[in-house]
Amino acid sequence: MDYPHSQAPGAPIRSGIPEHGRIPKYYAVKAHVSLLMEELGEGEALPAERDLAVRYEVSRETVRQALRELVLEGRLRRQGRGTVVAGPKLEQPLSLASYTEGVRRQGRTPGRHLISLDRFPCPDALAAETGLGRGEPVWHLERVLLADDERVGLESTYVAVARVPTLESEFDPDSSFYSFLRDRLGIGFGEADERIETVLATPREALLIGTPPALPMLLIHRVSRDTDGLPLERVRTLFRGDRFSFTTRLAPG
Amino acid sequence: MDYPHSQAPGAPIRSGIPEHGRIPKYYAVKAHVSLLMEELGEGEALPAERDLAVRYEVSRETVRQALRELVLEGRLRRQGRGTVVAGPKLEQPLSLASYTEGVRRQGRTPGRHLISLDRFPCPDALAAETGLGRGEPVWHLERVLLADDERVGLESTYVAVARVPTLESEFDPDSSFYSFLRDRLGIGFGEADERIETVLATPREALLIGTPPALPMLLIHRVSRDTDGLPLERVRTLFRGDRFSFTTRLAPG
Repeated sequence: MDYPHSQAPGAPIRSGIPEHGRIPKYYAVKAHVSLLMEELGEGEALPAERDLAVRYEVSRETVRQALRELVLEGRLRRQGRGTVVAGPKLEQPLSLASYTEGVRRQGRTPGRHLISLDRFPCPDALAAETGLGRGEPVWHLERVLLADDERVGLESTYVAVARVPTLESEFDPDSSFYSFLRDRLGIGFGEADERIETVLATPREALLIGTPPALPMLLIHRVSRDTDGLPLERVRTLFRGDRFSFTTRLAPG
Repeated sequence: MDYPHSQAPGAPIRSGIPEHGRIPKYYAVKAHVSLLMEELGEGEALPAERDLAVRYEVSRETVRQALRELVLEGRLRRQGRGTVVAGPKLEQPLSLASYTEGVRRQGRTPGRHLISLDRFPCPDALAAETGLGRGEPVWHLERVLLADDERVGLESTYVAVARVPTLESEFDPDSSFYSFLRDRLGIGFGEADERIETVLATPREALLIGTPPALPMLLIHRVSRDTDGLPLERVRTLFRGDRFSFTTRLAPG
């Protein structure tokens, strides 16, 4: 039996090649290039597109399509004019700990870059999700997330102005918002509901994060409450799908 | 200020349109169609491509690209020769409960369809991930996951033959493997480590699940142990990214 049981259990069965039916030509090239990437190892440069086209006897457009998918999946990355084998995705824990702490735990330097901070009356949809009062003033804080100076995500935080009246004057937008809540305002997190899905980057998001347009992203929605059960924040965090994965430990309910 | 604060807090800021720089034409159409979809409501049919092309004064190819992204994101779905507004994604809890229980809780009928069941000696990579012995016999059970007869995912389960010797003879592959472990073998789950990421469907996966090729998927890796802390299973579950999201409740660590 030619069943590829020697493969990693996390990889697609039969390298994704159907038992029956035709394999798209670009996908056969993608499978070949994947093997080549394993031989090369992380950080090594791939041969030029035209050399790969000659080697696999396909058009350059076919090679380009194969490489495009490998880039979208984060297995290759563009570097200067070439393409190199990417390292593994960052593994961020799903936890109440902040982004900052999660990135630090992986030996990376977290950073944030302010896009906008403004206040407006709480709209119906936000009130319904959080339990905040309709029309009460809320902040919207939007920041790009960085890891080792690389732009990896985009975060929108919605929080009541009454809760954090000095956000504009006292909060350093490059720092951890959770540390600010805890250390300056004595606000502790009780619990949070999260929902995770995959979406495509919009043109604005692609521009701000510096990704190819329509890159698959991981989007995490969070609604959190403080230790008294009162509504705290609504967060929408978009992470590069090619750079991030999320981990959790499950125990019996 | 024209900041669209009336939007849902889960939607992209400014509908994804950049403050500066050009908007791709297809994306402008996508934003228009999104508004139209809100007016129409779930299950309603979109006008034909050529009518949309006339309405927005663009080529049919531009309309097609906009609709393609909306389909990939699960906001539209193909139905017969037309395109209808899709319902919200299923929300599956990240928990030790089985797929079966999660789908039932949402009022859907879960199902499974056997692709293959075979046994082979545990390879190095699987042994390293799970703590099983190198070379000891393991089962690989591969099934398509169904919700209301719709194919929504693909699951590979690896488990030691010594643990479940009667898998081939006594287990109904259309039923819940977790119920089988619990009710027939008295095996209880202790804890599991999960990792969630986004990947593109391979041609084989697209064929088995019936999705467009290269659809963004959510991939969940699970390594679980029993109540005695002994290795139990390694699971790789692929869910349609256009149909599923995952929820979790976080408490302070």
